[in-house]
Order: sequence, then structure tokens, then C-alpha cells
Amino acid sequence: MQIDVNCDLGESYGIYRIGSDEAMMPLVSSVNIACGFHGGDADTMAETVEKALKHGKAIGAHPGYPDLQGFGRRHMAMTPSEVINVMIYQIGALDGFIRAAGGQLHHVKPHGALYNKGAIDPALADAIASAIKKLNPQLFLYGLAGSELCKAGQRQGLKVVREAFVDRTYQEDGTLTPRQQEKALIHDADQALQQALSIIEKKAVQTTTGTWISLEADSLCLHGDNEKAVELAQYLRKKFSEKNITIKAPFC
Amino acid sequence: MQIDVNCDLGESYGIYRIGSDEAMMPLVSSVNIACGFHGGDADTMAETVEKALKHGKAIGAHPGYPDLQGFGRRHMAMTPSEVINVMIYQIGALDGFIRAAGGQLHHVKPHGALYNKGAIDPALADAIASAIKKLNPQLFLYGLAGSELCKAGQRQGLKVVREAFVDRTYQEDGTLTPRQQEKALIHDADQALQQALSIIEKKAVQTTTGTWISLEADSLCLHGDNEKAVELAQYLRKKFSEKNITIKAPFC
Amino acid sequence: MQIDVNCDLGESYGIYRIGSDEAMMPLVSSVNIACGFHGGDADTMAETVEKALKHGKAIGAHPGYPDLQGFGRRHMAMTPSEVINVMIYQIGALDGFIRAAGGQLHHVKPHGALYNKGAIDPALADAIASAIKKLNPQLFLYGLAGSELCKAGQRQGLKVVREAFVDRTYQEDGTLTPRQQEKALIHDADQALQQALSIIEKKAVQTTTGTWISLEADSLCLHGDNEKAVELAQYLRKKFSEKNITIKAPFC
Amino acid sequence: MQIDVNCDLGESYGIYRIGSDEAMMPLVSSVNIACGFHGGDADTMAETVEKALKHGKAIGAHPGYPDLQGFGRRHMAMTPSEVINVMIYQIGALDGFIRAAGGQLHHVKPHGALYNKGAIDPALADAIASAIKKLNPQLFLYGLAGSELCKAGQRQGLKVVREAFVDRTYQEDGTLTPRQQEKALIHDADQALQQALSIIEKKAVQTTTGTWISLEADSLCLHGDNEKAVELAQYLRKKFSEKNITIKAPFC
Repeated sequence: MQIDVNCDLGESYGIYRIGSDEAMMPLVSSVNIACGFHGGDADTMAETVEKALKHGKAIGAHPGYPDLQGFGRRHMAMTPSEVINVMIYQIGALDGFIRAAGGQLHHVKPHGALYNKGAIDPALADAIASAIKKLNPQLFLYGLAGSELCKAGQRQGLKVVREAFVDRTYQEDGTLTPRQQEKALIHDADQALQQALSIIEKKAVQTTTGTWISLEADSLCLHGDNEKAVELAQYLRKKFSEKNITIKAPFC
Repeated sequence: MQIDVNCDLGESYGIYRIGSDEAMMPLVSSVNIACGFHGGDADTMAETVEKALKHGKAIGAHPGYPDLQGFGRRHMAMTPSEVINVMIYQIGALDGFIRAAGGQLHHVKPHGALYNKGAIDPALADAIASAIKKLNPQLFLYGLAGSELCKAGQRQGLKVVREAFVDRTYQEDGTLTPRQQEKALIHDADQALQQALSIIEKKAVQTTTGTWISLEADSLCLHGDNEKAVELAQYLRKKFSEKNITIKAPFC
Repeated sequence: MQIDVNCDLGESYGIYRIGSDEAMMPLVSSVNIACGFHGGDADTMAETVEKALKHGKAIGAHPGYPDLQGFGRRHMAMTPSEVINVMIYQIGALDGFIRAAGGQLHHVKPHGALYNKGAIDPALADAIASAIKKLNPQLFLYGLAGSELCKAGQRQGLKVVREAFVDRTYQEDGTLTPRQQEKALIHDADQALQQALSIIEKKAVQTTTGTWISLEADSLCLHGDNEKAVELAQYLRKKFSEKNITIKAPFC
Repeated sequence: MQIDVNCDLGESYGIYRIGSDEAMMPLVSSVNIACGFHGGDADTMAETVEKALKHGKAIGAHPGYPDLQGFGRRHMAMTPSEVINVMIYQIGALDGFIRAAGGQLHHVKPHGALYNKGAIDPALADAIASAIKKLNPQLFLYGLAGSELCKAGQRQGLKVVREAFVDRTYQEDGTLTPRQQEKALIHDADQALQQALSIIEKKAVQTTTGTWISLEADSLCLHGDNEKAVELAQYLRKKFSEKNITIKAPFC
């Protein structure tokens, strides 16, 4: 059995440092690197790409809304054409660093509000998928499993990587429990592990009401925001290894 | 006989429009497109690249300092590594639009203070040339004929396109007369034509003191800032045609 | 009889010039100066404030969303507290230039999507009014006549200036006809004059269906985007003068 | 005996956190708050101003070059007029938050490259002093003791607060030892204390060669970058208290 494990990295900006990039890099199979609009800058991108190549990770572009102060988490009323263009700009920029370092771009995963709104808004999802298709139809699109984004990617013939979360609970309709609600977050490592295993082995997840729903996912998204998150990643990696679950990026 | 004629385009930003892009596009053989740092934005870049491809022009990236308010004309004390990274970022971004539109990047010409300082500062010139070499050593570097930038490009094995001006006068040491000085600008179309012809036919130019100096150039830079500039471009094109001088980008 | 006439000015940025500031300045009684987020920059603000004081105009701050590329016309999902803070920041910045030039800030008029969304969204309208109240409760708030923004200002005890348009048609419910619809814009100078006069003299306006609705307004908003707009402003000013309608900012 | 102790605060941006603002706030008498160009944003400014007022600290504006990625540490070739305008903009913005919170702006201290270049470049120093004078000649100017900036402030009739450092060594000519050189930094708390005491009590400092030079300073600049820096600040405060040296902002 195998699963991809991805993490958002390279989100530091100038003297501002965030994320446990050093610690997370060896624990995942694919990385999503910020492209300078919601986080990241040219120097951080150069450095992060180099590290990712050294570690042999599948590299993805992680483009966001042009809103550094809001870290790309505030929805902006952009037209489909504007979304396509800011995506091509950011993916192209990251690809510049990858090619300069002798690597190859593997996938694209939208960030923050672009990801979340794209998961429920078919028109935005189509714009996101179009941008990737225009730039290079061989790129993988990472999106929330079951979302409009995955549907748009499939509609447009892209190779879609369906992503699931192990530190967030699911509701009966298959969506993530909103962060403001109780039980939205999974803090316990063993509970996270059980969710990961049920996704990998049973292609299903237990919802907050106790019922089981089907959930087909190709990749697990892990966070590297704090020490606790890094410890969870290490714990999962160890347990996966014991169970002969290979951590591996799609087609790598 | 043949010569390249280049022009800076795509420098509009958001609702702000500058440059006579429509009028200039058919008159030149190669275009330098702004990359979003000193001017230009993702939408303008997409649109300008599309037009340039439709007109069959050789497309260059025109990266600048990260200073939109100053239009990239104010020198910034960046390290060589910072310069390399902002260049790769911008060139990569433009290349994204070119590839999305089915074209190919032809050259890189730095903008504003990056161009002017790079013309006299060997360390900065080396950083600029390095960025291009790292990204793609097959790209042409456009620089001021006789400048440190051209020397750095040659040192690093890049294909260098030496650029000359027809609306600016030259001093005895081969440098352009500073704008603040009298006689710095050539307003008369026939004087501009004579300078162009002497550069093309005699590989020489008459300086402000009346003496002649040698000037080997592969490309003439024209401006599209105002109606007068467009008229000059039209006039030169007509006269070149009468004299069987072909306007053609290098290796195109 | 008297009416205020206001215009948005100082929206140029760096080398990018927009608006007929020179021509419009003498034609209006109050000006709304951009504060650097959607348009305008420190140099433009200094220059525009100086001109406005020289002409003796009532000066207002014209704050917008932090989105220069979108000219503040794209709604951004900001929290009320974030809106309050970007408004205080921008108004404070403009006030710096006004005080440095020996003048006094008269009013605040939100720009673009902040204005339009604030006209229909009570929570956003309250945030806008709060920002002004916190900074200086003596400032006038300019808002669309009949809008949520005016209501929020009144609720919070601000002095509200109700604004009407003479180059846009009104619908039966009192809202402006959306730009995408036919008959949304009034291009004819005499039709614009008639609308202005009915607003001033009858406190009413004829809607697109021919019915009359009541419309109480304290200020007319004129545009200075192009030559046609400037001519309309000149025409209205001349006709107002013939009818002894004084153009005058509130409490000036 | 008394001395002012100041610290740069409010330099966080969006989700990016830097500085030990909470810990440093009670330890100093005056604070320099970033204004959004090199660091800080509207939300951070609102929050930091509120805290500073609650602690009863003298509040200063800490304007920098418009270069967030470079944290205002890269010199930019701006004209005197451009420097004046970006300073008025930033100081005005901060003053907006101070007035909204019922406080009063006390001083201005330029940041990073603006501070360092202004310390040695008389023309830049004059521009900095002019900006303050234009906005409010009652504001204190904080500058490096003995620098061109202090001279410019005195020339223009501003109240100048001469600043000294306790974690940096001095050279025989009165300038700070450049960071790249050995012995540039003082890591030992007791050595820092001795330097502080000699500045306060003897108005003199021992240089790296062992000789003593006169150094008249009104304020000591402390840093809050890391835990060590906070500990030093706590140590100095304790020792000052034992020696009956009062920590107090000028004229507060």
C-alpha cells in the first residue's frame, strides 16, 4: 500500500520566518512551495527549491491570492481570467527556480482562500484548472477530495490528486468541520493515525456523528506550523513504516 | 544588411495605461516585456505576450527592481544573490505566459536602474548575467553596447546583443550624454536616422564634440512613450526599407 | 439654493497618470484624495493636497481596499476590525500631508468596492463609520444617498453627506442601474443637468421606468476620467451659476 | 540621574511575528513603532499603539524605506522630496492610530538603511529632519549620537534625542564598529552595563582600542529580537534601579 504525504513549505518572507521546513522536508513525499503572493519571496523560493531537490521530493507550486498581509486567506473577488493570470505568473516564477536548479515541476496546489473557495465554487475551480492546463497539462492538480476543484480538474483532463486531512474531522456530507466548531481539530496523535489508516486502508472516514462515509484520497496533507505538528508527522511516518505503507508521490 | 530593433512594452499596470504598445508592436523585431516588479502585471503580461506572438516578434523578459512606485528607476542596494533571485522570479513568470501561449522566450534585457547600474558596475553585471545563465544559457542578453553588462555576458558565455540608441547622443568615451545635459536627446528624425545609419553601415557614431568613435551594435532601442516616438519609429522603418536594411531579431 | 459637488482626485501612481486633476480642481467644492492603497502614492498625495488647499477646496480622504492592481474595485473578505485599521491607516496618512500643508481634513469617502459593498452591507458600513468615529467624530462621512453606509453613519452620530450621481440613472428602488445594463449611463449633458436640477430643486429623480422617486442629496459626485467628463462638469457649473445654485461644501 | 531607554516594536506583519513586544514594553520608556513600509501593518500598529498607551510609554514613529522584503535595510536611491513624502505618509498613518486611541505622538526615529545612511549623508539627514519639521516641529527626532542626522535636526530647530548603543562597540572616531568586524557586538551583560553606566555617568565610552572618547547621549537603544536581548534589558533595568538611575523619556 502507498500514499502521498504533502506539506506546504517556503512560506517565510524576508526576515520573517514561519514553518518547520527543515524538519518537515524529510518526512513528506511532496512539497507545495509558496510563490511570493501570499507568502514566500524570490530568495526563499530559491532556497526551498534547492532543499526539496536535494531531498528528492516532488515539487509543487502553491499559488495564492495577491494578499501578503492576509496570507492569502481572504477571498478576493477576482474574475476567472484574473485568477488564471495570477496563477500562471506564480507557477511560472516557481518553475524558473526549479529549472535553474535542474529539477522539474510536479504539481500545483492552490493556497488558502483560493483553495477553499475553489473547493466549493465551480467557476473558480474551472479557472484554477484552466491555468494549469494552459501552462502544462502534464502537471498534477492537488485538491480537496470530493471538491469542485477535483471535479474541475477531471473535467479538463488534468491528473488530479485527491487530498485528505488527518488533523481535521469530517462531517456527514464529506466536508471538513469548520474550524470555529468544537471537535473541528484532531489533537490526539492516535486519533489522527486511525483517521489516516481508515482513509488508506478502508477508503472511508468516520464523521463527527459517528457514521462512516466513503473517502478516496491519494495524498494526506500534513502541517509544519509548530513542534506538535512536526511530532505528528514523525509519528505517522513511523507507524506507516511499521505497517508497510509506502510514502510516495504520484508517478514518482 | 540587417539590424534588430527592440522596444520596451507591457509596462501598464492595472487600470494605469502607458506606452503605445499597439502602434509599436508592428514596427520592431523584438520586444522587452515588463515582468510585474517595476511595471506590468499578470493580466498585462498575458495580453502583451499574446500580441507579440501574433505579430511574430522575438520576446524578451524585461525584469527590474522591486519598486513599482519608482518604476524600477531607483537603484536599490541588493546583494548579487538577491538580484539573481528577483531576476529568475520575473523571467520565470514571463516565461510561464509565453509557454502557456505556445511561444518561446528569446532574450532578457534588464530595466531601468538595473540596466543602468549594471552597465557600469561589474559585480551587478555579473549577477545579472548569472541569473540568465542559471535559468537558460541559450537566452540572449541585451545590454548597452560597450558596457560592463555586455562584458559580463561574454565572460559567462552568453550570447550578447549589443544595444545602441538613436534618440540619445554619445560622448567621446562611448557613454550616453546624461539626460540632464544639453544635447542629450535627439529630437530631430533625420538626425536620429543619420545616427542609426552610421551605426549600421559604418559601425561608428559621431559624438557631441564632433569626433567619431567606433560603435558595434546588434540592436537599436526605440521608445514608444508618446506619439512623437511612434512617428520616429515609423520613419526609421520606412527609411530602412528604402535602403534594404532588414529589421530582424538575432537568430530569428 | 446650494449643493456640494465632489470629485475623486489624486489617483495617479508613480509614473502612471490618471484623471484630469488640474481641470477638475476649480470646478468642484470638495475633493476626495486617494490614500495609496487602491491608487495614489506619497508624492501624489503631497502634490494633490497642496493644490486642493491652494484652490480652497474641502479635502476628504478616499481610502480603499489594499489592492493597487485591482484599483480597489475587487471586494476583499476583510473582518470589520481589519477594515477599521486600513481606514485609520490611510486617513491618518492623508491627514499627515494636510497638516504638513497647514490645512484640515474635512471628510472621508470610501472608494470602489469598499464604497459599493458598504452601501448594501450593514456590517461593513458600521466598520467604515466606526473607523471615522474613532479617528475624529467631527469628520463628515460621504456615502450613497439612501444607502446602508449613510444609515450606519447616522446611527453612530456622524455628520453624513448624502451623495447622488448625475451621470448614472436610478431604478425604482432608489439604487443605481447596474453598469452592465442598458441606460445605466447618462451621456447627454442636458439629461445630466435635468437630473441634477430635479435632485437639487425637487429632491426627487425620475427613474428608468419613468416614475419619480424622492432623493435627498447633499452632494453631487462628478467624474474627471476623460475630456467628456470634464466638459460635463464645466457645463453643470455654468448652468448652476445661471440658476443661482451655489456650489459649496457642507459647513465650509 | 536619568536616561531614556527606547526599543523598536510592532515590526510583525500579517501572520508573521517578530520581536518580544510583550516582554520589552514594560522595560523601556519610549517605543518606536513600525509604520507598514519595512514592517508592521495596520492591525499590528493599532494593537501596538494600544499596548504602548496602556503602559504609558512615549510613542515614536519608526518609518523606513518602502521595502518589506528587505525589511528597510537596503538603501534606495530616493530623492529628498520622495524621502520627505514617504516619511510624512508613515508618520501620519501611525499618528492616526495614536489619536484614535487618545494618545499623542512623541517622536520619530528612522529605521534601518534610512537611519544608517541618514547618519552619514547630510542631504538625506536634512530630508528626514524636514519631514518631521513639516509635519510637527514639536516632535523629537531620535538619531545616532554625533551623527549627521542629529546635526540636521539641530540645524532645523528640532528637539534632538541623541541615541547610544550598549550592545555595540564604538571606534575611536565615534562610529559603531561595523557588524562584520570582530568585537562589533557586546554579548556580555556586564560589559553592556559598564558601557551604559559610562555613557550615563561619565558621558564617555571606551573604544575598541581602549581609548576613551566623549559620548553625550539622551537615550539608550535596546533590542528585543531574542530572549537574550530581553534578559539584557531586564538586567540593565534592575541595575539602573539599584543605582537610582531613572528610566524616563525626554519631557515626559
